[in-house]
Amino acid sequence: MSVYDQLNQLGISLPEVTAPVASFVPFVRTGNLVFVSGHIAKKNGQSWVGKLGAQIDVAQGREAARAVAIDLLGTLHVALGDLNKIKRFVKLVVLVNSDPAFTEQHIVANGASDLLQEVFGEKGAHARAAFGVAQIPFGSCVEIDLVVEVEESS
Amino acid sequence: MSVYDQLNQLGISLPEVTAPVASFVPFVRTGNLVFVSGHIAKKNGQSWVGKLGAQIDVAQGREAARAVAIDLLGTLHVALGDLNKIKRFVKLVVLVNSDPAFTEQHIVANGASDLLQEVFGEKGAHARAAFGVAQIPFGSCVEIDLVVEVEESS
Amino acid sequence: MSVYDQLNQLGISLPEVTAPVASFVPFVRTGNLVFVSGHIAKKNGQSWVGKLGAQIDVAQGREAARAVAIDLLGTLHVALGDLNKIKRFVKLVVLVNSDPAFTEQHIVANGASDLLQEVFGEKGAHARAAFGVAQIPFGSCVEIDLVVEVEESS
Repeated sequence: MSVYDQLNQLGISLPEVTAPVASFVPFVRTGNLVFVSGHIAKKNGQSWVGKLGAQIDVAQGREAARAVAIDLLGTLHVALGDLNKIKRFVKLVVLVNSDPAFTEQHIVANGASDLLQEVFGEKGAHARAAFGVAQIPFGSCVEIDLVVEVEESS
Repeated sequence: MSVYDQLNQLGISLPEVTAPVASFVPFVRTGNLVFVSGHIAKKNGQSWVGKLGAQIDVAQGREAARAVAIDLLGTLHVALGDLNKIKRFVKLVVLVNSDPAFTEQHIVANGASDLLQEVFGEKGAHARAAFGVAQIPFGSCVEIDLVVEVEESS
Repeated sequence: MSVYDQLNQLGISLPEVTAPVASFVPFVRTGNLVFVSGHIAKKNGQSWVGKLGAQIDVAQGREAARAVAIDLLGTLHVALGDLNKIKRFVKLVVLVNSDPAFTEQHIVANGASDLLQEVFGEKGAHARAAFGVAQIPFGSCVEIDLVVEVEESS
């Protein structure tokens, strides 16, 4: 089954990707690797604001991480033209905007990791680092960047 | 001298690596690179809890970073079957659970960097980033992830 | 126009790079990729100390990020012998020493991103993650590490 069938079955539609007004870009491909920029959690098109352990609870944080993973797939779709070209998710870095006492970043991060496994199966299994940061641009609760391996070098 | 002889001489035994109950994996290999997931500091099998600049002092932090490096070697041993296949340590990211006023993350990180150099010599010399984070999963004092280059692509 | 002409035109001179007294190194090359260690912001040869949202304002933070980017180019010049060998900047990680309420890490990071685009044009466009950290070694306000792709494997 194609990745897009799997997304449909999960009721997930990919977002429109807007070009950033910036001197950096959403992704860079080098050889078989694609490095994707940090994506922040959004809700209704706005930054999903708050700290875990304060304004945002773990269940909401998981949901936010899942939403970021979907936005990352939107960017990868633009980058590759076809998500089925992904050979393997290599590495996710999951940044959780954390109150200094909040220690469940791994649970929050599972919102993204689980989504990748649901959509991509074995290809979705990735190395990961998850940790708590002092803040995230626009006050967002979660930011994720990643590296994927694609089928062949162009 | 093989890496294992060197470990023996230093009195270091590699840990048993337990499979994580998660949708991410301890390592992913892509081409000649192996990306290893963030490993948190443990003591007696439990999370080594505390913040640098608060409950944990610099000497303890160094020791914790060294312990994480040993656990990372345990994972690399499982990943590669033989640590002698490592061509070069490429990059370490050392996250130090820090009180906002603690500024000696580089000293803490040396606990890991020095261990790699002791065991691997020139191959152990790596690029590094070390910085203070707001929290780490399970409240651990140190988390480290890394990238290594291995001898040849399989 | 060569990168060095462009630097001259911008009135930028590269710093002397001093060998770190440490068991890590300023850069590691693997295949066509060069991983550069985290560089902290300096002013007059000393750590540029302070937190964004407290002692350092956004304009100063941008300037600090630009200064780090110049220091990174100094290291890349040493690594490659010739900055014109850079094929593409791949990924920047911009760490901003942040008060827990400061949310403009992306503006600070632009100080580095804009400099790369000014000097390298299209080659300077990179994937990026920017976020707020609890502290940085020596209390510096900004730390940046990066990955570049070079023309061919040696």
